[in-house]
Amino acid sequence: MSHVKDGAAGIASLSRIGGEGKIPTKAIAVAPPSIGNVAVGFDVLGHSVQGAGDRVTVRRTTDGRVTIKAIRGIAEQLPLDAESNTAGRALLGLLPHAPPRTGFEVELDKGIALGSGMGGSAASAVAAVVAANALLPRPVGLSTLYELSMEGEAAASGSKHGDNVGPMLLGGLVIAPAKGAPVRVPVPDWLHVALVHPHVVLETRRSRAALKGAYELHDFVVQSEGLALLMAGCFTSDALLIRRGFRDVLVEPRRAPLIPQFAKVKQAALDCGALGSSISGGGPSVFAWFEDRTTTERAAREMTLAFKEAGIESDSLVSPVAGPKAEVISCDA
Amino acid sequence: MSHVKDGAAGIASLSRIGGEGKIPTKAIAVAPPSIGNVAVGFDVLGHSVQGAGDRVTVRRTTDGRVTIKAIRGIAEQLPLDAESNTAGRALLGLLPHAPPRTGFEVELDKGIALGSGMGGSAASAVAAVVAANALLPRPVGLSTLYELSMEGEAAASGSKHGDNVGPMLLGGLVIAPAKGAPVRVPVPDWLHVALVHPHVVLETRRSRAALKGAYELHDFVVQSEGLALLMAGCFTSDALLIRRGFRDVLVEPRRAPLIPQFAKVKQAALDCGALGSSISGGGPSVFAWFEDRTTTERAAREMTLAFKEAGIESDSLVSPVAGPKAEVISCDA
Repeated sequence: MSHVKDGAAGIASLSRIGGEGKIPTKAIAVAPPSIGNVAVGFDVLGHSVQGAGDRVTVRRTTDGRVTIKAIRGIAEQLPLDAESNTAGRALLGLLPHAPPRTGFEVELDKGIALGSGMGGSAASAVAAVVAANALLPRPVGLSTLYELSMEGEAAASGSKHGDNVGPMLLGGLVIAPAKGAPVRVPVPDWLHVALVHPHVVLETRRSRAALKGAYELHDFVVQSEGLALLMAGCFTSDALLIRRGFRDVLVEPRRAPLIPQFAKVKQAALDCGALGSSISGGGPSVFAWFEDRTTTERAAREMTLAFKEAGIESDSLVSPVAGPKAEVISCDA
Repeated sequence: MSHVKDGAAGIASLSRIGGEGKIPTKAIAVAPPSIGNVAVGFDVLGHSVQGAGDRVTVRRTTDGRVTIKAIRGIAEQLPLDAESNTAGRALLGLLPHAPPRTGFEVELDKGIALGSGMGGSAASAVAAVVAANALLPRPVGLSTLYELSMEGEAAASGSKHGDNVGPMLLGGLVIAPAKGAPVRVPVPDWLHVALVHPHVVLETRRSRAALKGAYELHDFVVQSEGLALLMAGCFTSDALLIRRGFRDVLVEPRRAPLIPQFAKVKQAALDCGALGSSISGGGPSVFAWFEDRTTTERAAREMTLAFKEAGIESDSLVSPVAGPKAEVISCDA
């Protein structure tokens, strides 16, 4: 009656594009953007988003080391020291799972802006381990990829949480536990997200600092009720239940003041008929869920205009909530 | 794409056992025991349990009043004043939904011990409104029955929460929102509960007082993760997910000291293979979930023995988690 679920086999076979029995020496993987802290799911629920992600090229070496060879794209100022780099730290964790003397050379092409609240720190770690896993004679399973990716992301964020790496590994909406494999939550295919990224930087550490202090049990109850309703809505494709559950009385009120125009951008989404709207990850990006793609596209424009009213440029993504997962896109022997 | 759900029609037709167009003047309803605060679902998740419940007989009168005529059974010391009685207060709330001058005469047969943590306060309110609703020319819907039952229960508990009345109205495992209709969560039919009631009284008010003070955000994250996993496990009939999610780091640690032998009773359940075990409602009853009925029966005996080690007598119930709902059992015109 108990069903052990582990996507390990799936991830491993996905990683092995090279020929039968032939272990590749180079692999390229991409990881999509994602939305962490999905409203009622602080540090617990996240979902991936279609859009430019991070691309990581990994070459297998025999020097037993992890070397960051290059960082390109929209965030070039990242640390080249492996221990301080999210991809590097994740790969250091993978070495004990590889044959002796295995090393990795890494090139990062950043597609997700850091400090955007779109999982930029997580994506490099995830793409790195997914690529490197394809170079191992015995690829590790989902739980290990998840654990290593979380450790990698912690190099940048200062705390370990899986609500970005989980969705990147599995795709779609995901429960991200502190331990054990992440769990995918089915969502209706009509459910779409508008994700608007204002061109202001809000560091994860600063965003976390806003959450210090004590909390009231009553707020937990309100938030839990929302989480339960949202989960029920997703499992039964019930927009009304999702709408009833989509809230954040716990975290959003403390972080909203850090995001210019937040109230107006959220209101613009609600005015378009959003099932709910809140802060993506630690911010400053703002997201909202809708019942169809056309409305989502209109809302993305309105939300962008609401930022613009205060002179803030932004860009936006429109995606199914059932977004893509990280994948190996090329493998050479 | 949006699906409005309301069990109103179901409840109304259920309440109408009398003939076509004939409005009965007397109805008897029973409400089952229930477990509130299901581990990760403090004030939010509850489920009903097969076992002796509260039986309420309601007669329709024309004096515009609610009169408690008799209280029998295992809790005779309850207030006869309608406003202070859970059934009475709930029925006072129903009067504005009835034709002018409608009144109700009520007899309560208490089957659930008060202060047991098995929903004793809630059951009389639920059975009363379900019975009385069958006597109305235009029965109210589920949301109203739920609201009135919560108000009734608050007469005894001092606070309004729906995690006992919700499951009693719908049956099974239920999300109990502060506003709007409760929502049933499907559970696998193999999922059973052992509920052990020690013969010591713990008043709801005292149990609530133990929860005062501030809470850490981290504990809430752990609890939310559990709630999300438990919900996913119930929706997908996955015992492993239910086991991963079944916990209570928020409320159980504060209330456990009020319940003699709690740690040993819980351990007895876990030793039998429980998916999880915690305090039922405000205590002192302890419950645990299992993957099959036979194990549940054995665990109920072991849990009872663990109370007995400290000289505490107890009785136990074994039931599917998908327990029954309140029902009209007899209706006379």
